[in-house]
Amino acid sequence: MTPDTYSAGAPRATGYDPAGFRPLTFHDAVPRFQDGSDTPRAYLERCLEVIAAREPVVRAWVTLNEAGARAAADAATARYKAGRALSTIDGMPIGIKDILQTKDMPTEQGTALFKGVQTKTDSASVLALRQAGAIILGKTVTTELGMSHPGPTTNPFNPDHTPGGSSSGSAAVIGAGMVPAALGTQVVGSIIRPAGFCANTAIKPSFGAIHRGERLGFSQSHIGVHAGDLIDMWSVLYEMGLRSGGDPGEPGLYGEAALRPPTKPGRLIVMEAEGWAMTDPATAGAFDRLLGQLRDVGVTILRRGDNPLIENFERAIGDSLAICRDVCGYELRWTLENLVERFGTGLSESMMSRLDLARGMTIEDYRLVLMQRETARRAFAAIGHLADGLISLSSVGPAPLMENKVKDSGVTHTTGLPAYNAATSVLGSPAITLPLLAVGGLPVGIQLIGQRHTDAALAGLARWVAANVKAVAA
Amino acid sequence: MTPDTYSAGAPRATGYDPAGFRPLTFHDAVPRFQDGSDTPRAYLERCLEVIAAREPVVRAWVTLNEAGARAAADAATARYKAGRALSTIDGMPIGIKDILQTKDMPTEQGTALFKGVQTKTDSASVLALRQAGAIILGKTVTTELGMSHPGPTTNPFNPDHTPGGSSSGSAAVIGAGMVPAALGTQVVGSIIRPAGFCANTAIKPSFGAIHRGERLGFSQSHIGVHAGDLIDMWSVLYEMGLRSGGDPGEPGLYGEAALRPPTKPGRLIVMEAEGWAMTDPATAGAFDRLLGQLRDVGVTILRRGDNPLIENFERAIGDSLAICRDVCGYELRWTLENLVERFGTGLSESMMSRLDLARGMTIEDYRLVLMQRETARRAFAAIGHLADGLISLSSVGPAPLMENKVKDSGVTHTTGLPAYNAATSVLGSPAITLPLLAVGGLPVGIQLIGQRHTDAALAGLARWVAANVKAVAA
Repeated sequence: MTPDTYSAGAPRATGYDPAGFRPLTFHDAVPRFQDGSDTPRAYLERCLEVIAAREPVVRAWVTLNEAGARAAADAATARYKAGRALSTIDGMPIGIKDILQTKDMPTEQGTALFKGVQTKTDSASVLALRQAGAIILGKTVTTELGMSHPGPTTNPFNPDHTPGGSSSGSAAVIGAGMVPAALGTQVVGSIIRPAGFCANTAIKPSFGAIHRGERLGFSQSHIGVHAGDLIDMWSVLYEMGLRSGGDPGEPGLYGEAALRPPTKPGRLIVMEAEGWAMTDPATAGAFDRLLGQLRDVGVTILRRGDNPLIENFERAIGDSLAICRDVCGYELRWTLENLVERFGTGLSESMMSRLDLARGMTIEDYRLVLMQRETARRAFAAIGHLADGLISLSSVGPAPLMENKVKDSGVTHTTGLPAYNAATSVLGSPAITLPLLAVGGLPVGIQLIGQRHTDAALAGLARWVAANVKAVAA
Repeated sequence: MTPDTYSAGAPRATGYDPAGFRPLTFHDAVPRFQDGSDTPRAYLERCLEVIAAREPVVRAWVTLNEAGARAAADAATARYKAGRALSTIDGMPIGIKDILQTKDMPTEQGTALFKGVQTKTDSASVLALRQAGAIILGKTVTTELGMSHPGPTTNPFNPDHTPGGSSSGSAAVIGAGMVPAALGTQVVGSIIRPAGFCANTAIKPSFGAIHRGERLGFSQSHIGVHAGDLIDMWSVLYEMGLRSGGDPGEPGLYGEAALRPPTKPGRLIVMEAEGWAMTDPATAGAFDRLLGQLRDVGVTILRRGDNPLIENFERAIGDSLAICRDVCGYELRWTLENLVERFGTGLSESMMSRLDLARGMTIEDYRLVLMQRETARRAFAAIGHLADGLISLSSVGPAPLMENKVKDSGVTHTTGLPAYNAATSVLGSPAITLPLLAVGGLPVGIQLIGQRHTDAALAGLARWVAANVKAVAA
């Protein structure tokens, strides 16, 4: 199935109203699976109904495996009936970003060069989800090779706007209420930014926490979870991490099966990164009002002027977009050279400009940018004792229009600039976005950020914020 | 071409005589390429003649791309004629272990499950070699998926014996004088052990020094070079590392284009590891005589009894075989689960026993073995100041018979036990093997080992040893 096979005329989105938005969740259905008043199969059918209604405009799926999903849902239904559910996510329909391999569906990576390519293999994370009983429903649209050139997906709250990228489809399926969870990947800003644009609750976990399978070629990429709320988000992450393990040589995800209880932060540091200077006034104002709510309930908010270590940190991450561009360009070089050799053409102008930049780099240039990255990480570790976490916007504003194009350091972006995201990718730190702002009728996320390997504690912090801060509309 | 297409009756090996063995080298031909008295094409044809004569018994190649190699050799010939050679290895015919992807040949990984599989992609290291002008002549036999189940290759010095593994073919093509260099990979003992069995000079570089391309799934594997001497070995490693870079996030190979001058060690520490206790008496005696030569010229030889830090180090690496088994088993698990799911059967008993062991491991077990590995690395760093390097045998004796089978912790090995190699794989330290012993008419290597990232200095040390120690026959 491709988005083109849909006829036009399906319901359109009507903008984002944070008070009225009720994302799809799964954990609340599980008790009914257990008492027999609902089944995973029926849950799946409801998901498929929403998909049928919304997909013609949202265009979030590359492939749907409805038959395979129904068979998996029936198996899950039987397990609940027998009282032998495999995990807290047994029977949960999940979308997989089409950059990760699936044994039963093609993996096209957002490029026509890989049209129909069957790897016949599950990526480690996908295998882990299946082992936990989750239903691998389909593949979601990614930008070209997970970088900047966009796919067809539209924002579920307004189809004139981008859903963000590169995890475009995984963000949109949550915003559209099609499934309760989806996997995304983030090299620079590909989970948190689109998740914010589409009102997801989502986590980019600590670097190394979830095994990246065949996607180990980047030294700072991550597999994360887009979901409707924190409970589902954490359950998917935990059950996957338990079974996939972390990246080779990494200890994997730390934490327990249950989401931590809400934990009130005493202090939060505002991370300005490269985003604050380019944030639009309405979004900045909404964020300030949100910070005001935190102050009102006794949370101390620290900024770069409040402590020289914070200032030092902000300076160290001040070139994160360039660090990401150079690290990822150099690391992607041999893959792109192979594609150029094999196919001649077929890569976007945006991708070719990345290759050109990488071709100009020497191994010494790469070593230098790795040192910059290491310096940023040390500066981040040095502020760990000052607060319980960091807080920032997830993007510089709401999702831009579909046809927008911005240039950053010679590379064209169409799905929004990752100006608040490059830093956390550089740091390898966990980041959780919550859909707490609305600007001009579109969602904007705020993110909480923790030190590496504190994912579980960060989720508890996010839970407190989600429960104690009112969404702000501007 | 498969080994089976050869008719029988070609010349057989006649045992190893270290005084008479003259491995094929390349660097000495380059001046003749430059003055026009020889050409890379003629050099290649001489290689092909040796291959035609010896391959029927040695069976080292899975695929030979003679046409592609001739075209590449002609291009190199033209570059030398124009005075525009691309590197010190321009025109060098190289064999690639058939675990690494090549755009113009199948990558079968030593298993019938991947018979004829064309990836149409060059692994990062292979691409780098092509960029340096090297001729990718063919794919060399590997054991099944680079682990323990053997291929058809025989030892070039006696076909009743194994060439070792998993880099069986890459070791054998050097011992047989078919090509001047070949790429191998080592997860546990897959470069140094077979190289020693086949009288290669070879290096397993520091962990991360050479980009592993699609082979990043192990946290302790390495790509290294089998060659006829240290000059060619270093040139291939350097030129490749310059262009491939290291693994993602790693600084890559440190050093200069030219092999370091011979550097006399003041002190060397004998590494006993798990091998010394199981080394056969003739091999142990030969090694002791070699150490005697070093003492005679003023090199201080230290052993575990001489310093408590050395004793601490030996204890820390005393379970390296088990560490390797558990680390690699856990990391290989999702790949093997995919193969079992996809093909049902077709994996060897040896491989299935690895999967069974891995299935019994939890993520906590894996974290524990990572901690053991980290402890070993710290114990190794703590002896860095005591000596210029370590010295040990490369194997517990000469190559065992083809039909041998030994069990280690539930896994069957046929290509010899990596009892001197598991430790250096655990440590991620560079190791260079030199063909300085002969035992019962077969080669046995000795290895020099350095701290991580000291590859260039270690090569200078090895150069001094190679020039100042006489081969010992027992």
